[in-house]
Amino acid sequence: MLPITRRLLASAPRRLQAVSLRPSLALTAVARASTPSIARGAFSTFSKASFAAALSKDKAYTADKYPHLQRNQEFKKLTDDDLAYFKSILAPSALTQDEGDLEAFNNDWLQKYRGQSKLVLKPSTTEQVSQILKYCNDNKLAVVPQGGNTGLVGGAVPVFDEIIISTANMSSIRSFDNVSGALVCDAGCILEVLDNYVAERGYIMPLDLGAKGSCHIGGNVATNAGGLRLLRYGSLHGTVLGLEVVLPDGTILDNLSTLRKDNTGYDLKQLFIGSEGSLGIITGVSILAPKRSKAVNVALLGVSSFEQVQNAFKRSRDELSEILSAFEFWDKASIDLVKQHLVAGANDPLESEHPFYILIETSGSNKDHDDEKLNNYLEGLLTDDVVQDGVVAQDTTQFNNLWSIREGIPEACSKTGAVYKYDLSMPVPVLYDMVQDMRTRLSDSGVLGEGKPVKCVVGFGHIGDGNLHLNIMAEKYTDEVTGLIEPFVYEWIAKQSGSVSAEHGLGLMKTGALHYSKSPSMMKLMRRVKDMIDPRGIMNPYKFLP
Amino acid sequence: MLPITRRLLASAPRRLQAVSLRPSLALTAVARASTPSIARGAFSTFSKASFAAALSKDKAYTADKYPHLQRNQEFKKLTDDDLAYFKSILAPSALTQDEGDLEAFNNDWLQKYRGQSKLVLKPSTTEQVSQILKYCNDNKLAVVPQGGNTGLVGGAVPVFDEIIISTANMSSIRSFDNVSGALVCDAGCILEVLDNYVAERGYIMPLDLGAKGSCHIGGNVATNAGGLRLLRYGSLHGTVLGLEVVLPDGTILDNLSTLRKDNTGYDLKQLFIGSEGSLGIITGVSILAPKRSKAVNVALLGVSSFEQVQNAFKRSRDELSEILSAFEFWDKASIDLVKQHLVAGANDPLESEHPFYILIETSGSNKDHDDEKLNNYLEGLLTDDVVQDGVVAQDTTQFNNLWSIREGIPEACSKTGAVYKYDLSMPVPVLYDMVQDMRTRLSDSGVLGEGKPVKCVVGFGHIGDGNLHLNIMAEKYTDEVTGLIEPFVYEWIAKQSGSVSAEHGLGLMKTGALHYSKSPSMMKLMRRVKDMIDPRGIMNPYKFLP
Repeated sequence: MLPITRRLLASAPRRLQAVSLRPSLALTAVARASTPSIARGAFSTFSKASFAAALSKDKAYTADKYPHLQRNQEFKKLTDDDLAYFKSILAPSALTQDEGDLEAFNNDWLQKYRGQSKLVLKPSTTEQVSQILKYCNDNKLAVVPQGGNTGLVGGAVPVFDEIIISTANMSSIRSFDNVSGALVCDAGCILEVLDNYVAERGYIMPLDLGAKGSCHIGGNVATNAGGLRLLRYGSLHGTVLGLEVVLPDGTILDNLSTLRKDNTGYDLKQLFIGSEGSLGIITGVSILAPKRSKAVNVALLGVSSFEQVQNAFKRSRDELSEILSAFEFWDKASIDLVKQHLVAGANDPLESEHPFYILIETSGSNKDHDDEKLNNYLEGLLTDDVVQDGVVAQDTTQFNNLWSIREGIPEACSKTGAVYKYDLSMPVPVLYDMVQDMRTRLSDSGVLGEGKPVKCVVGFGHIGDGNLHLNIMAEKYTDEVTGLIEPFVYEWIAKQSGSVSAEHGLGLMKTGALHYSKSPSMMKLMRRVKDMIDPRGIMNPYKFLP
Repeated sequence: MLPITRRLLASAPRRLQAVSLRPSLALTAVARASTPSIARGAFSTFSKASFAAALSKDKAYTADKYPHLQRNQEFKKLTDDDLAYFKSILAPSALTQDEGDLEAFNNDWLQKYRGQSKLVLKPSTTEQVSQILKYCNDNKLAVVPQGGNTGLVGGAVPVFDEIIISTANMSSIRSFDNVSGALVCDAGCILEVLDNYVAERGYIMPLDLGAKGSCHIGGNVATNAGGLRLLRYGSLHGTVLGLEVVLPDGTILDNLSTLRKDNTGYDLKQLFIGSEGSLGIITGVSILAPKRSKAVNVALLGVSSFEQVQNAFKRSRDELSEILSAFEFWDKASIDLVKQHLVAGANDPLESEHPFYILIETSGSNKDHDDEKLNNYLEGLLTDDVVQDGVVAQDTTQFNNLWSIREGIPEACSKTGAVYKYDLSMPVPVLYDMVQDMRTRLSDSGVLGEGKPVKCVVGFGHIGDGNLHLNIMAEKYTDEVTGLIEPFVYEWIAKQSGSVSAEHGLGLMKTGALHYSKSPSMMKLMRRVKDMIDPRGIMNPYKFLP
């Protein structure tokens, strides 16, 4: 923070009050040699054990909450013979049947969906996955692949009695090429573990998300997870080099290439990236890790309007350009929740409140150059009144604190009540209109406010990707509130040619909303792909495609 | 060049002779404000007219050269009724039947493949493409989609009498978003035209290749073209945002999204990227153009061994990092050919000859920062004897000259004789072993050398992507030479788990080599995809899949 303030004293004294150092932040400049590898946010500390314990005993099953869903009677029910088969190929510890233990696998993180599976299988080899799937396919036993179970659309938990196949016991790193950065690993490796592993070798995983401490890389790929680094490193469709996938009939599709370029035939791995377990189970992942940047800066800025958020973004693309690695925003309502719920590690370092906040991260190879680019950029924003106030992290603690605010928002939302989460993609100029229109609609309907069914509406997300997270906090999930939000939110997005799911996927939640973002011809071809690869429909049924 | 030389005078005087300014290069430092948009290389000036005229009259048909290929007798032969139908939906100028005019469409750039099509259709709307394909599918008329016809594996020209459907009349830019950089255009837009268009708006196309002056963006996408910027901006699987594709049955798959993130269903567009016209015809492309860098540097280095080429590359990833935009190499045999054939604009500015050459390009937002990074990097390479000599372009002319050497290699090769072109992907450490092993093999067989069937073997390519271009120049294409090269080259690559086609695709040339890079299970699923989307097999038959 110091260098910016000093320069501002000289070049723009009228801004002295605006760019302020909070007493709580150390003034000594500490070297930021590399991206801190400390776990950020609180999501990752939300363990499965505490999660299962926190479940209310009377929480309704998905099947009861959504009575239009009917169990496909063609699917076989689990028998002792089936169990005997699974026991013949797996170690005893790889089968979970205890009702209490099953809870953590049957329920999603948001406590919105609750399945009724009686069996979790945790194979440890690709061959075992192949044997399991072949058996299930032959016997028409429906299955749900599950990674870290951190999804937000109900895609990784059963709807009825589907067998859960967990990648938890597949967590080996198979190889790492220290020259190219190509990492090959089992699907059950936890993202944060991988990030720490490659960090020790000078690399960084090309994706990062709040759930990094729990999510599995196989699940990340199966859901085409976006997250915080997409702006810099692109999507998994570009960074995944190869996959090993088991098809429903037990076929092992071995395509674990580590080549950056390979134009031999259809790029089949792409079909599985984002297929949400509907076509097979990803058992191995080859992914290109970029070089870890030597210098990382994070700045938090207070901004008066969404118009100015956009201006700051446009200027960042010109001035920070190749070192820009994240451009996140949130509104005042978001940070109010973070403060209210005292999210661990997240303290607002700005003196006054602002309608909008921006978090900017830069990553580059030369600290002096990056500091100069960032300082010039921030100075320009202040001079031109684009931002009102700002701080730059001076050490790892401050770095983590600023990121904790952003990553603490989803946690604060979930502590506020039942969360209606929408993850929307659209042109940036209209991005915040969605939040305001939703507030107006709920307010006009008399359900928004103190003592009413809906407590508040917040907006945050990834400006750089045109990705808004719209969270609506209610007392509880009710048909009345749901009916006010949907299909309004989807129709609104369709008018903007946006996506009803930017990064969370479809899961169970948005299966019926697919047509708002995809044409009938696209949906028809998707169905043909599904029917070709999973003709018996055992893979993650009731979800994804209508 | 000046700043580096000056610094070297002070810090490493013994290197004074090494980094040399050639008298032919202007010493004044000229601002390099942006990537020059001047057409580079000579490929783009190789017009279809001159090309057709250059064809020898007695050049053999593909069908005669490869007698194992048999026309599929289930395909209908073109009749007057068919012509009447096409004339009913297209303008007269959109049909080509003149024998002379057909030559440029029936022959590939390398003059290696020659088809016998009697009809070229040039629709100007997606609807027309749909009508044509539906008719052809209903009547079992085989077709070949063709863009700029700059492919190198015989994928875009007919084998027998397939109807050629050219995208030449589909060349409109549909929209450009000046904030996000999302460009939506017709498939027939020429890459260079698009690059100039976005350059005027501060953006750059995420791909660049020697054929930029002729190739169509639709063809680039259909072949998943790699090229010179892949190191920086990644592959088309990451940068293409959406596609409009006409399926064989006439269905228009409308997926021209401009969203950076969209997780609604299978990412079907990925199937068509690199499908080489075997599944449908791409009629529209939405692609994300990155911001054009304000500062661009190009350096040419002379290096004593391939080991040192690798060292220079490893150090570039650490020291140039986010500003590195190209890292190309070639061997002495390559530049000898360029000099021999006086490729326009390509003059070697280094004082002495070297076993290997490196071309490095940096692109960034701050010229001073980039210059400092590049100077430090080059100084380190010279001090540590990693490179022997080098120059840095000081103006647009020099910039183009250095790139012309690299881009002139394929042209020089084709002027030398019949070119056996292999485009291979493999781990970088073994990359040049391939070239040396091939020379040894041909030499040991007594066919390589002055007055012998094979004149020379050269290696060049994209170090950053592990992509070698192995070119073998012969008097003419003969079974003897072919038999010495293949399957040796493919077996060698398979042992390294490499790819028999890094970026050129399979086309007709490598259909039979697919199994060296893909497993039986992968090939089987590819076949199922093909049969699902093109059940009558009319799309680009005899190619791609065995």
